Amino acid sequence: MTKKHVYNFSEGNAGMKMLLGGKGANLAEMTMIGIPVPPGFTVTTEACEEYYNNKKSISKDTEQQISSSLKRLEKEMGCGFGDQNNPLLVSVRSGAAVSMPGMMDTVLNLGLNPQVVEGLIKKTGNKRFVIDSYRRFIQMFGDVVLGIEHRKFESILEGRKQTKGVLYDTELDHDDLTEIADRYRALVEKETGQRFPDDPWTQLIMAVAAVFESWNNDRAILYRKLHDIKGLNGTAVNVQAMVFGNMGESSGTGVCFTRDPATGENRFYGEYLMNAQGEDVVAGIRTPQRLETLEDKNKEAYNKLCSIRHLLEKHYKDMQDIEFTIQEGKLYLLQTRSGKRTAAAAVRIAVEMVKEKLIDKKTALMRVEPASLDQLLHDQIDPVAKKEHEAAATGLPASPGAAVGHIVFDAHKAHELNEQGKDVILVRTETSPEDLIGINAAQGILTSRGGMTSHAAVVARGMGKCCVAGCNSITIHEEKGYLEVKGTRLMEGEYLTLDGATGEVFIGRIPTVEPSLSAEFSTLMSWADEVRRLKIRTNADTPHDAETALRFGAEGIGLCRTEHMFFEGERIRAMREMIVAETVEERKEALAKLLPFQKHDFSGLFKVMKGKPVTIRLLDPPLHEFLPKEDEEIRGLAKELGIAEEKLRERIEALHEQNPMLGHRGCRLGITYPEIIEMQTRAIIEAALEQDDKNLVPEIMVPLVGDVEELKNQKGIIRFIANELISKKGSDMRYMIGTMIEVPRAALTAEEIAEQAEFFSFGTNDLTQMTFGFSRDDTGTFLPEYLKLGVLEKDPFQALDQKGVGSLVRIAVDAGRKARPKLKIGICGEHGGEPSSVMFCHDAGLDYVSCSPYRVPIAKLASAQAAIREKC
Amino acid sequence: MTKKHVYNFSEGNAGMKMLLGGKGANLAEMTMIGIPVPPGFTVTTEACEEYYNNKKSISKDTEQQISSSLKRLEKEMGCGFGDQNNPLLVSVRSGAAVSMPGMMDTVLNLGLNPQVVEGLIKKTGNKRFVIDSYRRFIQMFGDVVLGIEHRKFESILEGRKQTKGVLYDTELDHDDLTEIADRYRALVEKETGQRFPDDPWTQLIMAVAAVFESWNNDRAILYRKLHDIKGLNGTAVNVQAMVFGNMGESSGTGVCFTRDPATGENRFYGEYLMNAQGEDVVAGIRTPQRLETLEDKNKEAYNKLCSIRHLLEKHYKDMQDIEFTIQEGKLYLLQTRSGKRTAAAAVRIAVEMVKEKLIDKKTALMRVEPASLDQLLHDQIDPVAKKEHEAAATGLPASPGAAVGHIVFDAHKAHELNEQGKDVILVRTETSPEDLIGINAAQGILTSRGGMTSHAAVVARGMGKCCVAGCNSITIHEEKGYLEVKGTRLMEGEYLTLDGATGEVFIGRIPTVEPSLSAEFSTLMSWADEVRRLKIRTNADTPHDAETALRFGAEGIGLCRTEHMFFEGERIRAMREMIVAETVEERKEALAKLLPFQKHDFSGLFKVMKGKPVTIRLLDPPLHEFLPKEDEEIRGLAKELGIAEEKLRERIEALHEQNPMLGHRGCRLGITYPEIIEMQTRAIIEAALEQDDKNLVPEIMVPLVGDVEELKNQKGIIRFIANELISKKGSDMRYMIGTMIEVPRAALTAEEIAEQAEFFSFGTNDLTQMTFGFSRDDTGTFLPEYLKLGVLEKDPFQALDQKGVGSLVRIAVDAGRKARPKLKIGICGEHGGEPSSVMFCHDAGLDYVSCSPYRVPIAKLASAQAAIREKC
Repeated sequence: MTKKHVYNFSEGNAGMKMLLGGKGANLAEMTMIGIPVPPGFTVTTEACEEYYNNKKSISKDTEQQISSSLKRLEKEMGCGFGDQNNPLLVSVRSGAAVSMPGMMDTVLNLGLNPQVVEGLIKKTGNKRFVIDSYRRFIQMFGDVVLGIEHRKFESILEGRKQTKGVLYDTELDHDDLTEIADRYRALVEKETGQRFPDDPWTQLIMAVAAVFESWNNDRAILYRKLHDIKGLNGTAVNVQAMVFGNMGESSGTGVCFTRDPATGENRFYGEYLMNAQGEDVVAGIRTPQRLETLEDKNKEAYNKLCSIRHLLEKHYKDMQDIEFTIQEGKLYLLQTRSGKRTAAAAVRIAVEMVKEKLIDKKTALMRVEPASLDQLLHDQIDPVAKKEHEAAATGLPASPGAAVGHIVFDAHKAHELNEQGKDVILVRTETSPEDLIGINAAQGILTSRGGMTSHAAVVARGMGKCCVAGCNSITIHEEKGYLEVKGTRLMEGEYLTLDGATGEVFIGRIPTVEPSLSAEFSTLMSWADEVRRLKIRTNADTPHDAETALRFGAEGIGLCRTEHMFFEGERIRAMREMIVAETVEERKEALAKLLPFQKHDFSGLFKVMKGKPVTIRLLDPPLHEFLPKEDEEIRGLAKELGIAEEKLRERIEALHEQNPMLGHRGCRLGITYPEIIEMQTRAIIEAALEQDDKNLVPEIMVPLVGDVEELKNQKGIIRFIANELISKKGSDMRYMIGTMIEVPRAALTAEEIAEQAEFFSFGTNDLTQMTFGFSRDDTGTFLPEYLKLGVLEKDPFQALDQKGVGSLVRIAVDAGRKARPKLKIGICGEHGGEPSSVMFCHDAGLDYVSCSPYRVPIAKLASAQAAIREKC
Repeated sequence: MTKKHVYNFSEGNAGMKMLLGGKGANLAEMTMIGIPVPPGFTVTTEACEEYYNNKKSISKDTEQQISSSLKRLEKEMGCGFGDQNNPLLVSVRSGAAVSMPGMMDTVLNLGLNPQVVEGLIKKTGNKRFVIDSYRRFIQMFGDVVLGIEHRKFESILEGRKQTKGVLYDTELDHDDLTEIADRYRALVEKETGQRFPDDPWTQLIMAVAAVFESWNNDRAILYRKLHDIKGLNGTAVNVQAMVFGNMGESSGTGVCFTRDPATGENRFYGEYLMNAQGEDVVAGIRTPQRLETLEDKNKEAYNKLCSIRHLLEKHYKDMQDIEFTIQEGKLYLLQTRSGKRTAAAAVRIAVEMVKEKLIDKKTALMRVEPASLDQLLHDQIDPVAKKEHEAAATGLPASPGAAVGHIVFDAHKAHELNEQGKDVILVRTETSPEDLIGINAAQGILTSRGGMTSHAAVVARGMGKCCVAGCNSITIHEEKGYLEVKGTRLMEGEYLTLDGATGEVFIGRIPTVEPSLSAEFSTLMSWADEVRRLKIRTNADTPHDAETALRFGAEGIGLCRTEHMFFEGERIRAMREMIVAETVEERKEALAKLLPFQKHDFSGLFKVMKGKPVTIRLLDPPLHEFLPKEDEEIRGLAKELGIAEEKLRERIEALHEQNPMLGHRGCRLGITYPEIIEMQTRAIIEAALEQDDKNLVPEIMVPLVGDVEELKNQKGIIRFIANELISKKGSDMRYMIGTMIEVPRAALTAEEIAEQAEFFSFGTNDLTQMTFGFSRDDTGTFLPEYLKLGVLEKDPFQALDQKGVGSLVRIAVDAGRKARPKLKIGICGEHGGEPSSVMFCHDAGLDYVSCSPYRVPIAKLASAQAAIREKC
């Protein structure tokens, strides 16, 4: 007739969630597989149901079953509930079949009363600890079981601290705590009209009833309603023995990892302290001992721990972070959870666990945080040495890695010093394409303005070079040859160290460590290649960048920015001649000088890429970016070009724009100056024809299209030139013409545009700028405030804004594929290498992402994870 | 048994389109109501069907019917087909039930051959005319009936012109033309292997068959396919007598209007020439005579014309533009169509025709082009005087009207001279808010940069002041005190005349004429009010603007730009103090000085608007717009504010932005400097509370929202201040908080935003900028080229881009109303006063449009037309 309402942990298993609740079933499972969790028992969810059916009282029968289980527990632990000399204390926790915030959570140390306290003090010899446990118990019980407001207990505690003039709880001694416990008891009596229950059995039954009650409190009901949780009987109650590591020299406590969390090596790694609580290990007052030494102190416990280590990994199939306690020689496991680890460790553990057949490849891929791979690809400041230094300033972590070098303010000087074998840090207010030579020469870049997608940041990431951007606590006095940071003046030539992963700037030199890519890393990447659907391309302007990306496994170039080729030596001169030209003929003459350079550059890229797709974007930036800004340079250029200085100034003035971002650039240049893209097309096609590579299909990309007519116009010019060259050569080479989707209007009219475009590439940098109306060069004035206030959760230039920009991407993908079902679609904005954005691109149905070379591995892993998630 | 396949014009009517084709039915209808069109007949569409069923030949029976009708026609015209002495010539035209380009169109002068030519020369005495008609006939017949390529005829004609060394056809004389006709005949013989058919009857039957053939040529089939035209038998053929006005002194030709096209007055208005063709009247070689004098020459024809005038108006219910010919005393009507007219005439005719019960009010409203009303609201250059001047330059017609005044380059000087009673034209490269005082003082504004929505254009339109913008052929040398236009140097103080409706700039003074609003105009406006659904509000910053708009019938203020209030005298000083403030306290102190000004301004607006809705936008422009740019001014300001010049420069430098359009402005200011909108809210609410007007519900508008969290933030601040003020006063005044939708992301996330916003107002200027990625200040470099090349059809800053920007508007309206079904939605961009945009707003379901005061009548009429169209 009587139903079983109480299960010892040893009587259940993981399948009994409905009856024992999640927590109870889990404790039972652990007990079953042989993990020595402190023993205990679970009062079932059916008992909760019975409680409500029974006018909210626990039936005699259930009480009896609890009593039996408690007796069994006393026996197992070798101590007694309420026993003054050898007391058993328990924790009481709620636990429904689904986790449910809002219910009563936990009462610890139940079973304490003044007599037990005395006995425990004798046993542990630690008066303060016992009294503190006692006052905490009264407070917890008073709050969650008796329903006395938490703040009333807090005000007693605060009062005492004020009286004593101390700030922290830890500064209260045994006498203070004793007085607080007395006051707590008085408070309970005043509030409830009854003395605090000293009888442990009464405490236990009251706590069990309180857990049952909390099943139907307002918050729990609301939570079930909001989450549509139905069909549950009620909550279960878990009663578990408390164990203590500070019960003398045969007791102890420790923390360990089943593998080395720093390297991932498959070795047991941990620390412990004898006669101590968990807090003591963490607090750092006493120095913990290495786990291995436990073998000498308690061989049995140590061996047990070693076998548990294997048991846990076999069960949880991941590296575990374990808390254990030894109470009077006996080992208990208090907690186990997946352990935190470095990126290197994450990769090694994931790969080795597959080899050990603990997990499959997909699980391994999900175990590594894509963004963390950055750590593996760049120099790092030596972590040990770094601890001894304080950052002088912190900017934006614009491009990871570490850099040490001499401060230089000028790009050309940086180049010179680098030629002399010196390491330099290029420090600029912000950089422009003219600084390219200096960025290339420097170990690292530091700017006082500009965001994560400023010129310096984008170029540095492309080169895999360390960059700290927008560090506005630094003031640069270039003309006077120094910078100021926190009142310190640093002269040109002094040393700086940058941490691009954190944005920290250090005065002086700190040693760095080089990365080395492990075999496990390559293995993981090859697994990612097996499952991902997205192709991964790279943004590369030079054969060198392209080679780097190929090493990381890039499958093509998604964006070659042709303008980056125009800044060196003779090229910039011809470029400037082209810009100041007054007639089409003059312009064509200047362009003719640029043609061989461009052709040579494209030829280099095609050679390196060996027939893999290469997308080349036609000239994009406004022309004024190519002209000098300083008086002296202007004078020099006028002389060089042989024109009047005033005339050059007029031309520069005429090119000035209020909002260059929204001005005369992209295909707007190609439409007003068709001869520019004629030359570029010629360079691309001639270079491609010379490769004589059957697989080569150059992809020509028209930037900044907002209306299909723009694309039609440009396409007409490109085809005219390209077809003529191809047929003249008697070749049957194919080529593709596509467009960037970076203007909101292009996304909104994508169906029309797709009729003309053979591929789309989302330029999400510009698309983000225009969709938000944020100039990425100017967000410094308000974006930090926005992030601080929570107006925006993330910087949309780092992680793609899926709600706004993303909805334009989805609109464009749908409309584009409607017009051209096989339309090839990719992304070449900075987001192409950011994990959450890559996953979005996968979900939105893109064909590829393109990112800077050093982000290729990140994109690979993120896209593999997206593919795995999709199948779940 | 035989079916009737040929109808004389007098046998049909307008209802017989399926049988006679559109053209044939129309000619029959005109004949029926008594209009003397040259007589003729129609071969039916069924005959065409028969032609195809009959193996592509015209049946004997049909030929017979044609022959009978032709005889009847000869009799009616009193001349004979092929008759050498008195020949009948005819035109042959195709005409299906629906108009269909691609079919054979027209052969004129059919019936000519060498003998008839001789006779006709005798009869007209005009050898050249007859020979020219003949060679044209051969060419037309050869091309459309015999299928000989047009260019072969053209090359004979060109050859002759080259031999003779002349450029135009008119320079060829009778001998040349005779030779050309001979060569044409030779060409026909060579191409067809047969002589050119000289027999008129053969010509006619061949032409009819050719029309039938053309029904199934490729172009016609494609056209029917594309337009899904089905169920038609074929095309009809119209054969009509040719009439000539140059057959001696009893013949003549003329053009007339049924009402005066300049004033709309209900009087017959026209010109004619005796013994002339239509071309002669237009060519201007002979001076035509006034229509009234025809009465003396041919009273019968004149009286007939007068009665036709009434007949036509009764029939077409619109003012008609008529071409007539008198052949040997007999009047024929060659063409009638709706006549072009001035805006004043359009209004008068429309209103008078309603009074005459010719048309209803809705038709009257559809008869007036909304944009043309601009002509009625502004000064115009005297059209007579204007003819004598040539424009020295042409810019953009940025704000209509005419202005004459002295050239001034400086806003303050413009103000001074105006105070002295002088008329001035303010000439600037571009204007900024600091120039407001000068714009206000000037008769007209001329800028060498900036587009239709540049600062100068927007402000000028708001004031109803003439403005020519972006006139880049003018070079301004302000410091040297002159401007240059086409090599002419004009000193400050010299006179200029501007035509804001055309963008023309004239050197010197040209008289202008003032507008006067007619009674008919008011009547038409009142009819518009009866049918339109859209409310019309105005963009007004001052009580004066608001009063102007009220006179035109504005129903509220849709946009009050608070920043325009900050530029005068003491205000700008307090504003600048606020901007350079280093602490919140200093900023609050400066803002406290601005509070009384703002409050006073709002008070003025509320008073004028008497409870009508007033939407006030919080501070929008970037702060640097309020700071001086010139060295001298900066020095002055530093002194005035009592701070170091370097410090002020640093602040100005810190506020500098790469793309201010996308920078720190709008609610981004309100979020980072909440004290600014605290002050503005206080000013608005305090001013409103003082009105003590039960109907007043101030509408506070937050600009540049892109994410709902921005609006939440601003709303929190506004409500905190407003509620406190209202409850302190013990008032129950309501107020509304809404937002601009001007950032693409706001439109894309409108559903979320509408949960927080009580109204939306589309800021389509900024929305256009961001959706296209066009900075309106910088489009001068490529937009003109785009329009020229047809890459864009219209300037999207003038007419709302319905495809791109419009799709964002529709997305936002749908999403906004989904979240808040009664959401009030309007538009306050410049498009609010442009007719096609207003119609779009109606279709998109907006509640109101808001435009500059002088555009209120245009918006009214356009919205009335939209409502009428919707019901059709």
